[in-house]
Amino acid sequence: MSTAKAILTKAPGAKFEKGEVPTRSLGPEMVAIDIKYSGICHSDIHQARDEWFEGAYPMVPGHEIVGLVTAAGENVTSFKVGDRVGVGTFVDSCRTCEPCASGNENFCRTGNVQTYNGHHYDGDPSYGGYANAIVVDQNYVMRVPENIDFAASAPLLCAGVTVYTPLKHWKAGPGMKVGVMGLGGLGHLAVKLAVAMGAEVYVLGRSASKAEDAKKMGAQDYLITSEIYETHKNFFHLLLNTTSADLDLDPLLGTLKVGGTLVYLGLSGNPQSFNAGGLVTSLRSIAGINTGNISDTQEMLDLCGEKNIVSDIELLDATDAAAVDEAYERVVKADVRYRFVIDAATI
Amino acid sequence: MSTAKAILTKAPGAKFEKGEVPTRSLGPEMVAIDIKYSGICHSDIHQARDEWFEGAYPMVPGHEIVGLVTAAGENVTSFKVGDRVGVGTFVDSCRTCEPCASGNENFCRTGNVQTYNGHHYDGDPSYGGYANAIVVDQNYVMRVPENIDFAASAPLLCAGVTVYTPLKHWKAGPGMKVGVMGLGGLGHLAVKLAVAMGAEVYVLGRSASKAEDAKKMGAQDYLITSEIYETHKNFFHLLLNTTSADLDLDPLLGTLKVGGTLVYLGLSGNPQSFNAGGLVTSLRSIAGINTGNISDTQEMLDLCGEKNIVSDIELLDATDAAAVDEAYERVVKADVRYRFVIDAATI
Repeated sequence: MSTAKAILTKAPGAKFEKGEVPTRSLGPEMVAIDIKYSGICHSDIHQARDEWFEGAYPMVPGHEIVGLVTAAGENVTSFKVGDRVGVGTFVDSCRTCEPCASGNENFCRTGNVQTYNGHHYDGDPSYGGYANAIVVDQNYVMRVPENIDFAASAPLLCAGVTVYTPLKHWKAGPGMKVGVMGLGGLGHLAVKLAVAMGAEVYVLGRSASKAEDAKKMGAQDYLITSEIYETHKNFFHLLLNTTSADLDLDPLLGTLKVGGTLVYLGLSGNPQSFNAGGLVTSLRSIAGINTGNISDTQEMLDLCGEKNIVSDIELLDATDAAAVDEAYERVVKADVRYRFVIDAATI
Repeated sequence: MSTAKAILTKAPGAKFEKGEVPTRSLGPEMVAIDIKYSGICHSDIHQARDEWFEGAYPMVPGHEIVGLVTAAGENVTSFKVGDRVGVGTFVDSCRTCEPCASGNENFCRTGNVQTYNGHHYDGDPSYGGYANAIVVDQNYVMRVPENIDFAASAPLLCAGVTVYTPLKHWKAGPGMKVGVMGLGGLGHLAVKLAVAMGAEVYVLGRSASKAEDAKKMGAQDYLITSEIYETHKNFFHLLLNTTSADLDLDPLLGTLKVGGTLVYLGLSGNPQSFNAGGLVTSLRSIAGINTGNISDTQEMLDLCGEKNIVSDIELLDATDAAAVDEAYERVVKADVRYRFVIDAATI
């Protein structure tokens, strides 16, 4: 049995430490990956701390993985040794349910295999990207364009596709006004991708501290959310909420044009309340999405290659595993511009 | 000044009585209509009773109007004397705002002219369809197919287009499962139109008393809403809520497929509450619509001609104006299958 060096936590909220975990065996459809970089997603923190559901420990978080192929099973046709590849939030799915059959493996009704803190269909636990190796079925591996910064491409595998999916679904493009609520890991990629797709992009936030960053990323303007309810009525085609705040839905819905949509990407955990009158009087919608499928992830990566889009990152030296604990603290305080990425060479 | 015989109410909740109201003058773009039939919409009751906003009295309700053209202004090109025509919920709009310019006069941002209980742009009050004549700008008049029952076509002008708009917008057709919540004036037309568009239609209600009717209209099945939360998970592409009940959104959203949409057509008046988790885990949406534009209304009428679709109606003899008061009482009790239509010859 092969193993990977990893950064893991042994119990809810326990400090990270170094260790080893087994990797999957290299079956005929499998691709072995030498992990180079792994992003830190806010959901890693919720899961490591057991805040969402009962976690499986030891846990090796990480589902924003990029690396190089080191071996490929005999039936692998899409990848060869040396290829730049990426792995996102899931590494397998049932492949037969309605969503899987229609290419939406992210919504697998059987339950897909989460990249970490889950179990493979044979019962083995799944271990994620805070490691130096992973073995994944070729159908759940994406190509990463050669021309983009490799470390800064890691966050595209989760944050990138999570914002790309609604931008694609609601057809962001020229002539469309897109509002991005919150400029963090998700939000800053939403701005870059929406701008690349040709939309006119506005960042909505609570304070103007990130206004300059927003404009550098291509945003038309930075707006204070609570100040636009009267000034920007019927303004946006699409609002992407990347925050985890409770939303004041009624006035927010009023900023949407006829046929406009507000999309939840972040969750507060509390019930959200609205008056349906704000919907019916303008054919407005409230929607939600939390990730994307394999095909859209590849499409988004290709677009990032074409437009040279990557995440703004802070590269993390994890020689001391405590660096991950410290990074978590800073993520919780929103003190990172805009994503930590672990340098796997230091694991 | 010309006048119309009308059934009107002089104060909030006052009994209906017969009277006369002025009609618009026949300008070059105007069409004079001999009203033949006028549907009673639930919104008539809310407005006659002053339940929504300050009403204008005397009020002649009615925005489901069909009749014959008796005169046409010199610039009228679309209609000639004797044509079967219809008028819906509005009779003018600003024609310059963004929604008007894109053909969505129903969402006119200046404020369109409601067929009744509103004011024309010159300040004159607008009077509706419980009358024997009306004069309307040709751009807000629709053709009614010759082959469909004339009286039973009246409710298409409001109820019909209100349900057609979301069916069209969310592309109801073969292979789609559409759930219609509530089998009343709106709901029964939603079933007929969705069936005509090729969708597989289910009616959702509180009791099975209308199950037989639903199936006669082409529904696949009649389901008790509260019983399907477990049995019909991930089942519907589209749910149209035609009730005015508060919805138990979280379990209802669970009955939607990936990418599915729940649309409010009815309003309870109370805030609605949901957990965004039910949206993000399947790209689901909550939307709303309360009427349609002129172009979609004509398209719906043409479809009804092609498929021979009309409302199920109870024709009302209004020789005694009190018949309207009695009809209102029965509508409030949901004791009509499925729409009252006033025979204007009795006004």
